[in-house]
Amino acid sequence: MERPVISFITDFGPESAPAICRGVMLGIARDAHIVDISHSVRKYAIRDGAYLLWSAVRSMPVGTVHVVVIDPGVGTARRGIAIRTARGDVLVGPDNGVLMPAADVLGGIAEVRELENPAFMLDRISATFHGRDVFAPMGAHLAAGRPFDAVGRRLDAESLVQLSFPRPTARGGDLETTVLFIDSFGNVRLSGVPEDLAGAAGALRSGREFEVTFGGNGHATIVERVPWATTFGERPLGEALLYENSFGGLALADNQGNHAARLGIEPGLDVRIRPA
Amino acid sequence: MERPVISFITDFGPESAPAICRGVMLGIARDAHIVDISHSVRKYAIRDGAYLLWSAVRSMPVGTVHVVVIDPGVGTARRGIAIRTARGDVLVGPDNGVLMPAADVLGGIAEVRELENPAFMLDRISATFHGRDVFAPMGAHLAAGRPFDAVGRRLDAESLVQLSFPRPTARGGDLETTVLFIDSFGNVRLSGVPEDLAGAAGALRSGREFEVTFGGNGHATIVERVPWATTFGERPLGEALLYENSFGGLALADNQGNHAARLGIEPGLDVRIRPA
Amino acid sequence: MERPVISFITDFGPESAPAICRGVMLGIARDAHIVDISHSVRKYAIRDGAYLLWSAVRSMPVGTVHVVVIDPGVGTARRGIAIRTARGDVLVGPDNGVLMPAADVLGGIAEVRELENPAFMLDRISATFHGRDVFAPMGAHLAAGRPFDAVGRRLDAESLVQLSFPRPTARGGDLETTVLFIDSFGNVRLSGVPEDLAGAAGALRSGREFEVTFGGNGHATIVERVPWATTFGERPLGEALLYENSFGGLALADNQGNHAARLGIEPGLDVRIRPA
Repeated sequence: MERPVISFITDFGPESAPAICRGVMLGIARDAHIVDISHSVRKYAIRDGAYLLWSAVRSMPVGTVHVVVIDPGVGTARRGIAIRTARGDVLVGPDNGVLMPAADVLGGIAEVRELENPAFMLDRISATFHGRDVFAPMGAHLAAGRPFDAVGRRLDAESLVQLSFPRPTARGGDLETTVLFIDSFGNVRLSGVPEDLAGAAGALRSGREFEVTFGGNGHATIVERVPWATTFGERPLGEALLYENSFGGLALADNQGNHAARLGIEPGLDVRIRPA
Repeated sequence: MERPVISFITDFGPESAPAICRGVMLGIARDAHIVDISHSVRKYAIRDGAYLLWSAVRSMPVGTVHVVVIDPGVGTARRGIAIRTARGDVLVGPDNGVLMPAADVLGGIAEVRELENPAFMLDRISATFHGRDVFAPMGAHLAAGRPFDAVGRRLDAESLVQLSFPRPTARGGDLETTVLFIDSFGNVRLSGVPEDLAGAAGALRSGREFEVTFGGNGHATIVERVPWATTFGERPLGEALLYENSFGGLALADNQGNHAARLGIEPGLDVRIRPA
Repeated sequence: MERPVISFITDFGPESAPAICRGVMLGIARDAHIVDISHSVRKYAIRDGAYLLWSAVRSMPVGTVHVVVIDPGVGTARRGIAIRTARGDVLVGPDNGVLMPAADVLGGIAEVRELENPAFMLDRISATFHGRDVFAPMGAHLAAGRPFDAVGRRLDAESLVQLSFPRPTARGGDLETTVLFIDSFGNVRLSGVPEDLAGAAGALRSGREFEVTFGGNGHATIVERVPWATTFGERPLGEALLYENSFGGLALADNQGNHAARLGIEPGLDVRIRPA
């Protein structure tokens, strides 16, 4: 049998909590590969976790079990769930929306079950660390080959907490979009894809100039003139570009610089892109 | 044979030193799982390392070899040791106390040996990197099945450098305790368990109010009124709770906030908990 | 067959990009060990990446495939290359010099090929994420046993972008050297080895005093009196030492302190070491 793969993402930070969960998983599925997606998701930030999970799942082998613990509601009535996706992966985590964009990009939800089977959990369930006590062992049992329908009762997918990323809006020749995420390069990932911008503003060619306006959230308005480019290297060092990033989305960057830090851009800002 | 598990904790930080040790281990025990507990332990902080190691070892599979390199005395006369615990795990690291709380929680010391056998070390031993030259290869040889008594001479457990976490004291109806550790959520982990507080102050019920006083170390005195709670979700967003954390210890937190940062709490502060 | 080992170093930071590449690798070489060297290399810093890679490769098992993505020129005409070294390892990454010191320490270049074979890449190659689309799959195919000569056309090693670390210069009884790298302990790694200093200044003995002068780069001149030592423990807490570090190089440190932070030392500064 091929070695099972478990991906693992949390907001636990640099201490021992991820290792504790890995230990629990290896006690159940000794042969598993555990691939850490990130443990430095912003604390309690369900949307950031959903974004990073979404960005990674397509590149994992088909059939991966994804264990997701961004769980500010731990210990409350929020449900634990497992989603079997059309691609064949399984997502395990809290029912707070964090799994939804990943489920979508993996082909959609084939089946959802509530995490109920105590045989797939630790003997003692704490009120504050379901990563260790529920999600890690549940994911490991599934990775080790236990049947999905043994997890717990079947749920209606419509009953799940929904979460989706904002969609851009074409208005006149402009595209109104949003800052989805800022990575450690300072690259600014926007909602929407190049087709959205081309639909609003016409064909995108290297060197075509746009006026980009950041604002909203009480933030001072910032206006930049930025050309469309296909690679960072088309622009001088430190100069900005508007481009299709490697996930197929619209993005802004400075070639070998930090676009977000230079301009003070934050996640959630409104962005208007207009032909210049 | 099941794949051996090696846990690994250091204060090496984000550069290549942990990878160098992992490379050495895989050269000896190619089939091992290496589970990183943390490599961002505060530099030279034996107590912090001891705490994080202690927090993680119970969740690792029985028989894990734990390689521990928080070793400010590297190159001096301090001994390298391997401890076989009652549970069946092995702890490998310097004799500076860092292994002791973990040994205790794994059932106590069954046998200790000094790291002496050159066949279980690299050919050349540097004066400043025993993680690579001594501890990693020693742990890997043990994980690969070499006998424990080949490590080196047997030591008297009484001869080891001792380290134990402080214990709280009941005084009148109060409990006098200490800040053991602050995690990246800002949750404040105290010495002692709920039974200690109940013994001093009577039964703990959700909503029962306590007055918590932080002080000592030349730190300004801080007084907070905090209720006992069983889950974060019992408290409004940003409000404090006193609770049993997932390791069974007393702790303070803000629901979805950072308790330690809000109040300026530091490890080592004195804490008095008194019924309000 | 022994499990293949892939080492992996990037400047990707704490988000999902390293996991995405690991997922791609495991989809191709399910049995591989992936050993992360670091993903917090300073952004775009080819020399830092080259240094950390160089520091780690000797400790990896012979035959490791090293995947290296410090690639500020992604999407430009810079080539992707694979280097087979005399020791038997393979280095995969961009032709920007980052692989060269590692190739050197692994015995030198036996053969270089350009990354051309589309069967060893993802179907769709983005302009900005060759880590995922080219380097990770290429490394994984090689780790899984595909023949090296299937990578692409053979290149002349002389045609590669060169990178080597500066060498110190003896001048009178002084040694003129450079700050190569500063690690998270604040230890200052200099170019050159103890033999260079002994050649300039005579035999090195514990306690022999030197005058160390930092300057250049518009930086204020700093002069420290520092003794040669073999271990940190020969010096009082917080006091400086000049020593041979565990990679065989000249280095400066404070015993259990942070030498670079105390003195404000930066990579690239000039350093003169003179007998005191």
